[in-house]
Amino acid sequence: MNQEIQTRIDRLRSGDARALARAISTVENRAAGWSELLKALFPHTGKARVIGLTGAPGAGKSTLVDQLAKHYRKENQTVGIIAVDPTSPYTGGAILGDRIRMQDHYSDPGIYIRSMATRGSLGGLARATADAATVLDASGRDLVMIETVGVGQDEVDIVRLADVTVVILVPGMGDDVQTIKAGIMEIADIFVINKSDREGAERVEREIRAMQSLAARNDHWTPPIVKTVASEGVGTTELAEAIANYEAYLKEENLVFKKNVENWQERLVEMLRDAMLEKARAQMGGSIERYAAEIAEHKRDPYSLVEEIVRALATTT
Amino acid sequence: MNQEIQTRIDRLRSGDARALARAISTVENRAAGWSELLKALFPHTGKARVIGLTGAPGAGKSTLVDQLAKHYRKENQTVGIIAVDPTSPYTGGAILGDRIRMQDHYSDPGIYIRSMATRGSLGGLARATADAATVLDASGRDLVMIETVGVGQDEVDIVRLADVTVVILVPGMGDDVQTIKAGIMEIADIFVINKSDREGAERVEREIRAMQSLAARNDHWTPPIVKTVASEGVGTTELAEAIANYEAYLKEENLVFKKNVENWQERLVEMLRDAMLEKARAQMGGSIERYAAEIAEHKRDPYSLVEEIVRALATTT
Repeated sequence: MNQEIQTRIDRLRSGDARALARAISTVENRAAGWSELLKALFPHTGKARVIGLTGAPGAGKSTLVDQLAKHYRKENQTVGIIAVDPTSPYTGGAILGDRIRMQDHYSDPGIYIRSMATRGSLGGLARATADAATVLDASGRDLVMIETVGVGQDEVDIVRLADVTVVILVPGMGDDVQTIKAGIMEIADIFVINKSDREGAERVEREIRAMQSLAARNDHWTPPIVKTVASEGVGTTELAEAIANYEAYLKEENLVFKKNVENWQERLVEMLRDAMLEKARAQMGGSIERYAAEIAEHKRDPYSLVEEIVRALATTT
Repeated sequence: MNQEIQTRIDRLRSGDARALARAISTVENRAAGWSELLKALFPHTGKARVIGLTGAPGAGKSTLVDQLAKHYRKENQTVGIIAVDPTSPYTGGAILGDRIRMQDHYSDPGIYIRSMATRGSLGGLARATADAATVLDASGRDLVMIETVGVGQDEVDIVRLADVTVVILVPGMGDDVQTIKAGIMEIADIFVINKSDREGAERVEREIRAMQSLAARNDHWTPPIVKTVASEGVGTTELAEAIANYEAYLKEENLVFKKNVENWQERLVEMLRDAMLEKARAQMGGSIERYAAEIAEHKRDPYSLVEEIVRALATTT
């Protein structure tokens, strides 16, 4: 490892917030040295508890995460928050929301908030989030919370790298549980019904229970349902307990390592896909527009072309 | 091309619904011969108009698509519908909804409906949808409609292969336009406000207009806003006109080929990514669990490993 990277890592691990921000930017933007940095950080990872939280827009996720952060700060734990907000660039919701939150925690260096926004890249956001979590973990944060808005495949990809996944529902949002998409219900280790003082909270609970009765999990854990009113701080302690209970369960049942291996299998495939795509793009280089034009003119079929490129890639160094 | 594939294609192009269903299954499941089939079908493609429609759950998309299908049938055009429904496997919504719709059109061979559901694969649904659209196009359908539920990156990936993209909004769904995610507002060639007899339709329209004033499109098209009440057939003709207007605009401005080339560039990258991933997975083969375990034990860093695999792949045939 070169001296410059060692210096960066020393500063990062001493708690320097600017070094932390810079390191996350480096890996997020794939700036010069990003790969060497991650390799050098890796030995320092694996200590942070990583909690993923997701739910539909308007479910009160940010407020809940803030409450949790305050809870953990009272226990003297340091917290890193990655807020993945794929709000439209038109509305700028991510930036505004983030500024307000930053002010709130401004005086506490024990909480570090970083927001990430969709850039329309192919699967790039999940990878960028994972890398940012790695940096926060290596920096010595006790807890890393990854919050993401939405209930689609994007969110599944993002939160499944967490050790514990919390899915947040609210009463009275249209068809409730029915509109939650494939994958999200399945990845919940804990359900939260936020704004649970509203009408319909019992119905949401019944629907979750009904779905749970249809399919047992491989690890035999039954995700608990925690009711919260995040705006008033109600239920935060119960949620923190539920998270701790699940972590304890994983330890008791010797599932920590198994889960870790499963996570890494998925991440490896994703990392490999990204790396291969990069290589393939480089291979096609400036030809891609010409290829696309030839396909659009029906002079070439895309299926044979892709086979040719993959073959060619395998025979060059 | 071998005789068996030629026979399949002849049957498919003669309008045989069973041959059509079988061909879609072959490419969707990557069953034996899928690649040869697509190569052989490609010369027959490029004639169908491909229309993508997306919107939040509950926006009345299926009803609108049905109305459009009836409209085009009156003009004696044949229609293929691909309903991409990433509903949770728990709820089984896709299957039920599809059966009801199938019955409705049962007597008309001019309408073919195919539903696709999320299978949790990495980007596999967009690819499967594109391949199914290719089969429908090659089979001689005049129109292919791709409808998808939701407003996330999944849906962007799925509908952007269409020639015309319709985004469906409804009044009174929470924060309306604010909750529409990155990418969706940008890809709309036409906006529909469905259930426009409800309170709040004007507000949605104002919000769309406000967003449009912030960002001009590269092709200088201003997406029109069509108000519909799909359950009563109101606005269907106007929507069909708006679609035809946009198609005419693309022709007048000589943008058809350009758009086609851009679409193929994106699809090529996606196809290449899938092909490379398959190759990479095969390369790792049974080692992936061992690798993941070594990473989980911190005996190996994942970043170096991926580099090694990509390097190794480039030197083997």
